[in-house]
Amino acid sequence: MAFTEFRPLDEKSLIEYIKAVPFLYSKLGSDLKVKEVGDGNLNFVYIVISHARYFVMKQALPYMRCIGESWSMTKERAYFEAVALTELGRLSLEHVPKVCHFDLTMSLIGMHYLEPPHIIVKKGLIAGIEYPLLAEHVKIRCKDTLFHIPPLSFHHGAQTFAEFCGNMELCRLTEQVVFSDPSKVSQYNHWTSPYLDRDAEALREGNVLKLEVAELKSKFCERDQALLHGDLHTSSVMVTHESTQVLDPDFAFYWPMGFDIGAFLGNLILAFFFAQDGHADQVNDRKTYKEWILRTIEDTWNLFNKKFIALWDEHKDGSGEAYLPAIYNNPELQQLVQKKFMEDLFHYTLGFGAAKMIRRIVDVAHVEDFESITDASRRADCGHRALEVAKLLLKERRKFHAITELFQPFKNSSHN
Amino acid sequence: MAFTEFRPLDEKSLIEYIKAVPFLYSKLGSDLKVKEVGDGNLNFVYIVISHARYFVMKQALPYMRCIGESWSMTKERAYFEAVALTELGRLSLEHVPKVCHFDLTMSLIGMHYLEPPHIIVKKGLIAGIEYPLLAEHVKIRCKDTLFHIPPLSFHHGAQTFAEFCGNMELCRLTEQVVFSDPSKVSQYNHWTSPYLDRDAEALREGNVLKLEVAELKSKFCERDQALLHGDLHTSSVMVTHESTQVLDPDFAFYWPMGFDIGAFLGNLILAFFFAQDGHADQVNDRKTYKEWILRTIEDTWNLFNKKFIALWDEHKDGSGEAYLPAIYNNPELQQLVQKKFMEDLFHYTLGFGAAKMIRRIVDVAHVEDFESITDASRRADCGHRALEVAKLLLKERRKFHAITELFQPFKNSSHN
Repeated sequence: MAFTEFRPLDEKSLIEYIKAVPFLYSKLGSDLKVKEVGDGNLNFVYIVISHARYFVMKQALPYMRCIGESWSMTKERAYFEAVALTELGRLSLEHVPKVCHFDLTMSLIGMHYLEPPHIIVKKGLIAGIEYPLLAEHVKIRCKDTLFHIPPLSFHHGAQTFAEFCGNMELCRLTEQVVFSDPSKVSQYNHWTSPYLDRDAEALREGNVLKLEVAELKSKFCERDQALLHGDLHTSSVMVTHESTQVLDPDFAFYWPMGFDIGAFLGNLILAFFFAQDGHADQVNDRKTYKEWILRTIEDTWNLFNKKFIALWDEHKDGSGEAYLPAIYNNPELQQLVQKKFMEDLFHYTLGFGAAKMIRRIVDVAHVEDFESITDASRRADCGHRALEVAKLLLKERRKFHAITELFQPFKNSSHN
Repeated sequence: MAFTEFRPLDEKSLIEYIKAVPFLYSKLGSDLKVKEVGDGNLNFVYIVISHARYFVMKQALPYMRCIGESWSMTKERAYFEAVALTELGRLSLEHVPKVCHFDLTMSLIGMHYLEPPHIIVKKGLIAGIEYPLLAEHVKIRCKDTLFHIPPLSFHHGAQTFAEFCGNMELCRLTEQVVFSDPSKVSQYNHWTSPYLDRDAEALREGNVLKLEVAELKSKFCERDQALLHGDLHTSSVMVTHESTQVLDPDFAFYWPMGFDIGAFLGNLILAFFFAQDGHADQVNDRKTYKEWILRTIEDTWNLFNKKFIALWDEHKDGSGEAYLPAIYNNPELQQLVQKKFMEDLFHYTLGFGAAKMIRRIVDVAHVEDFESITDASRRADCGHRALEVAKLLLKERRKFHAITELFQPFKNSSHN
């Protein structure tokens, strides 16, 4: 059984594949069990269990998993995911699973298995588990990748950049689902109907909102600031109390910095509304847990901000081209420039985060913390309140100057 | 005599080269005269005169012509110039000279000769010649290239974009000379000393100015909106009363739209101060000509603005991805979006134009309309007033809403 051309694998044929690839066979042997465990929107993910170890294999098929063959999508995304995992792993070694195998023909990546109790953050949030190091770790990943590629140096390697231009199809998908679909009638849009029908209609008819979305989309499409993960929601991160691992950078591209950290914050805000108000019951009103989510939001931004500025100070006489020491080396100016830069980044972060929140409520790919609320009217009520907050953040983002200023609107909109 | 590897040509060896290349030989024959006529900062330009025709050959050497071998520079810029001439010519056929020959090894471009009375715009400005169609033609070139590549479609072909990543060295040079060198002590900076010493010092010490320059530089480096010429000053354009031809896109890259039109306007503003106040005499106070320059500035922006919006309206139901008809198709929103877009573009255009003005007065590459004023104190006086206006435009650009609002500050700073 040869694997000289692409074919979709299944649990059985993946075993044949492993036996046919000497590197994998020598690592895993022939006594294998395979289980498909993927629950994301795009790809198929297999856990391979051998006597020696666990291993993960991930295959991209030429369509989107959650829709099926009617939404075709280049399987070459697997190549960019492998490159991005390697590149992001190089910058943030402890927080990205190691890639051990890549097969371009098969669009197949083999990587280290993350041992239990690693769990998808979103599932932890639904279960109400606190992860004390989450903000610290996400901040590390963000500042490592954002700092050491640009923006303080501007020039990401032209070669890597040129290479990632090949990932344009996934870029377009992000542009479509995050910035366009929620504002228009779109085949796969869905929401908790009929409860949210008027909310969805308001998104399609709000001129001020659409003006702001146009600006964010334009910034997103045209600004190649840094190599980002591109889809950093709470299902792209696995955690234990000690470890935080970032997965699934299929959408990696050179994008404006605020997009990753905004996506992560936006998903935490969704968790604040959905996972908590939606999952509270008489035994546990989740009030304490909601406070923890707010603290995590606050810490994620503030730790990132603080560490980013500290790194900037440390490298201010370095070789970065954006703020040359010969121009920006006086302390007063340095502070002014940093303040302006971080404030601009904060505002775009809020805008991108809000756009990601909106899409998760009305477009094709919803999130589990939301979908797992079985009572439709309760789910819709959480959705309505999260949408109102997202619209406020998107339209009024320039009025916020500190992350904690967001919390009053959250509390005003939340049930407790 | 073989030309299988790169060598710098001269008037004599270029004749040998032409005889060795069948295509050129068949076109031009062997009875040739060659004259080097380049007066730009980078390349060597030869006019080839045969019995049959005139022809232009342009060679890039691995350094900057105006400095010499101590400022090395990739000769592969010739490749990007040839690609850009072809690409920009495709979009704006009548306004770009036709490329007929390209030799990658020799970094040599052969192109159509522009017959007299074609003259470099800058020389025309110094001579006080009015070109009634200049604004109209420059507007056409700008709107053609800006419109038909993005921004209304966003997605320039990923392949061309990836290819232009190879032109990064020239990008860096632009970033350096336009946005960094004027703000710092730099080896090749020079100005009319001692008259402008304090002005140059003020540029290096103005915190507010440097904050704005940082924003413009960041936008310039990170925003890949459209394939631009990259160096559209008044020496990159040749004119007659009927024809306008854009030359020398060595610096072509995907850059924010306002950069080309800003450069052109900035150079016209310089001409207003230098070529005119500096060249006025008792016979001709150049007052009428200055009015013509202002009209040309006004027309260039307003015609561009008007035509761009008209094209946008015409294509509003087209396939562009930035403003999808399903989202932006109501007339009120369409107008709001266009107004916001053009106002943002106007402000960046002013910022980029002002940065280009400043560099021409204090950095390595000055301009002829300035240098040809022999009286140093008079030249410095023009320079000082142009610098004051440029700083105002750069810092206060967001306060201007129409191009004619600029003219009062010009008139306040001008001698008549």
